[in-house]
Amino acid sequence: MDERHHARAARRPASAIGKNHPVRIRIDLAYDGGRFNGWAIQPGLRTVQGDLEAALATVLRLDSTRVVCAGRTDTGVHARGQVAHVDVPDGTRCRGLLRRLNGVLDTDVRVRGVGVAADGFDARFSAVWRRYAYRVADAPKLVDPLTRGYVLDWPRPLDLAAMNAASPALLGLRDFSAFCKRREGATTRRTLLHLAWSRDDAGVAVADVRADAFCHGMVRSLVGSLLAVGDGRHEPEWPAQVLTAAVRDPKLKVARARGLTLEEVGYPADDALAGRVVLTRRRRQ
Amino acid sequence: MDERHHARAARRPASAIGKNHPVRIRIDLAYDGGRFNGWAIQPGLRTVQGDLEAALATVLRLDSTRVVCAGRTDTGVHARGQVAHVDVPDGTRCRGLLRRLNGVLDTDVRVRGVGVAADGFDARFSAVWRRYAYRVADAPKLVDPLTRGYVLDWPRPLDLAAMNAASPALLGLRDFSAFCKRREGATTRRTLLHLAWSRDDAGVAVADVRADAFCHGMVRSLVGSLLAVGDGRHEPEWPAQVLTAAVRDPKLKVARARGLTLEEVGYPADDALAGRVVLTRRRRQ
Repeated sequence: MDERHHARAARRPASAIGKNHPVRIRIDLAYDGGRFNGWAIQPGLRTVQGDLEAALATVLRLDSTRVVCAGRTDTGVHARGQVAHVDVPDGTRCRGLLRRLNGVLDTDVRVRGVGVAADGFDARFSAVWRRYAYRVADAPKLVDPLTRGYVLDWPRPLDLAAMNAASPALLGLRDFSAFCKRREGATTRRTLLHLAWSRDDAGVAVADVRADAFCHGMVRSLVGSLLAVGDGRHEPEWPAQVLTAAVRDPKLKVARARGLTLEEVGYPADDALAGRVVLTRRRRQ
Repeated sequence: MDERHHARAARRPASAIGKNHPVRIRIDLAYDGGRFNGWAIQPGLRTVQGDLEAALATVLRLDSTRVVCAGRTDTGVHARGQVAHVDVPDGTRCRGLLRRLNGVLDTDVRVRGVGVAADGFDARFSAVWRRYAYRVADAPKLVDPLTRGYVLDWPRPLDLAAMNAASPALLGLRDFSAFCKRREGATTRRTLLHLAWSRDDAGVAVADVRADAFCHGMVRSLVGSLLAVGDGRHEPEWPAQVLTAAVRDPKLKVARARGLTLEEVGYPADDALAGRVVLTRRRRQ
């Protein structure tokens, strides 16, 4: 299979066939997920994709646009480092795009960077890892009304050492079906690269979670299993037992969306972008 | 004048005369000022004092309570380290008060600590300093929807070195009438202890401002003058010139409330609390 062909096909939306090649724009954005029904567009509901596509269509005077992102966040989940791309017709006037988009978008979603993407770039399929943070205030003196939109308050003190003892057995290439909502025909094999809890300067417990990609609900299920370890309801061995059983454990409670933020997406160097697209597409099938 | 008499009188509200001595409770609290009309109670408007007094009356089954705080924040100003006191009748059941108050209060105000105050403690008059932070995101990549409630976005990059060059000439015991909204009969002499800008881990510009006390609008006026220096509209010498002129300069723009947070209040050691009350009352008159 020709990698170059694949990369180019990915850059050309159906609407552009027979016209000049479209130009791919990379958009770095952040949002407060609290008033969004997640990323993915849904009729009649406010979504980040819906708002962003509408803003692009307005600002670029296009009938419609199609935005693709690195991590399709669920309802209530936030992002500081979301990355997306959009293909626009060659010759589209993109000057001042960042300022113009932010002028149209509500303040709970902000474009933080925008520019012509490197050749072969695909926000979703070029990505090599996604990093999420999950934040928990586990004592009354840590609960801060100013951060209540993105920090979960937890009624019992968490034993971070126990939670970190549970993590190593979950790392590596695994079938995370016990931690995912099943989707027909989609693999649940993922490589969990990093999973560690620490306290920030204020004392809030923060999970730093990184994987090549996450299946649906995976971060919140992992965090839910570790919160159960952290407040003593389960032993540190339990999350790995759930993983190995490879079936949904009814005792596993998914952590609430509010504490979860997509912090960063990793991409390879520009000359490896197209190759990564081929590799990712092949793995997911 | 007898210091002990003063301290004790301050502890005894009118309603308690002829009963047992009241018990003074210290309350440490935090709030998101965005949906409050400031601290001070106002008929028909939602205020922090109003909410807190209503919650205390409910939880302690009292007809009314009167709360006194260290820093009466304006509409839209936040607090992480506000301190208040309330006098309750001896014998009032205070067990589980923190949990019960937080159960009644809305989530934009949280009690973070509560307990019987040290002898002679007065949230307002025992305080030796107040520390505020003012936060500014001065580049699109710094604007974070998750912190938009307490970080001001600023359209031009700020020169923090110029702003810090302007600060030393403002420190010390001064008449801050040029930076204050006048109140009949109230002194505008304050001791500005610290005023410095730095960038946090994310790159957001943060002013750290500390004084023995602030008069009305003082932090936001000081910050407003420094923002004008930071984006080049005025020279670093300008804020000190405004101070010396001792009259309101029409070019001085008060910074918006949203970026301002009362972070911390300093108190002396327990055995110096009552003495401090006398000293503060004398100075303010």
